[in-house]
Amino acid sequence: MYAQITQFTKMLHTLSRLLDKAQAHANANGFEAEVLLNARLAPDMLPLTSQVQWVCDTASLATAVLAGRQPPVSANSEKTISELKVRIDETIGYISSINEGEFAGWEDRIVAPPGWSGAFRGKDYFYQHAVPNFYFHMVTAYAILRHKGVKIGKLDYIGQLPFLR
Amino acid sequence: MYAQITQFTKMLHTLSRLLDKAQAHANANGFEAEVLLNARLAPDMLPLTSQVQWVCDTASLATAVLAGRQPPVSANSEKTISELKVRIDETIGYISSINEGEFAGWEDRIVAPPGWSGAFRGKDYFYQHAVPNFYFHMVTAYAILRHKGVKIGKLDYIGQLPFLR
Repeated sequence: MYAQITQFTKMLHTLSRLLDKAQAHANANGFEAEVLLNARLAPDMLPLTSQVQWVCDTASLATAVLAGRQPPVSANSEKTISELKVRIDETIGYISSINEGEFAGWEDRIVAPPGWSGAFRGKDYFYQHAVPNFYFHMVTAYAILRHKGVKIGKLDYIGQLPFLR
Repeated sequence: MYAQITQFTKMLHTLSRLLDKAQAHANANGFEAEVLLNARLAPDMLPLTSQVQWVCDTASLATAVLAGRQPPVSANSEKTISELKVRIDETIGYISSINEGEFAGWEDRIVAPPGWSGAFRGKDYFYQHAVPNFYFHMVTAYAILRHKGVKIGKLDYIGQLPFLR
């Protein structure tokens, strides 16, 4: 499970690099990067800015509650790529501040995230909500950029892999 | 880790239900469901049919190699929603045929999926490739349907959750 927490961090670095590519694409094509931040895949889906904020919120909420900590609260007020990259860095910093030992007993910890009407076993919350929700927003962010013509591909999403040979 | 394998199965059931909603949407709006199966988010992205096949392939490959089995091979010849739903059912059946005990030692098992140029530690392969790749195709399938106006939402994607109270 801690390997999945580490993976959240890896994907957050990936997301930051995707935003760099979004900025470069906007610069190269003579439009404001905010056009991409406001883009959506459907009128009633969240725009890219919100997708990035949700990736961060999901990762920090999951690590916090499974470590028995009070989750951090964000104003979600970011408006620019620079601000979103700071938010991503802060999220990575928060996740990294939690030691592996703090997760002891996570599977059976009863978690009731703030604002939720129900409680879960930690293991159910993690695999059935936190991980799929994290990837939901991560892939949707990727898909918005891809849909809008940013030159990114699957390898940008997967990132470097630790091959043995 | 076995909880994540179980989660693959849950998400495959979800994907089958999303295809039902796609079929119903096509019927209600008087067009062939194959229009949705051929839809893409970008000209150089894979269409919905391929996204569904990749979800299945990723889940069956991961469970096979981490259990030390020879991975099943599919012709990926599905052309209709009915055929894709059969494929999903077959994948669920395959995953369910592997007992939890067969995964013993999965973290340090050296895996070299067929056709790949490299080998991994099982734990790295699982968290850094199999899980993110599974969700990549799962969320892209959802996003294609959403982008094309099928009436689905986040709750359809997350599915039922085992609340304690």
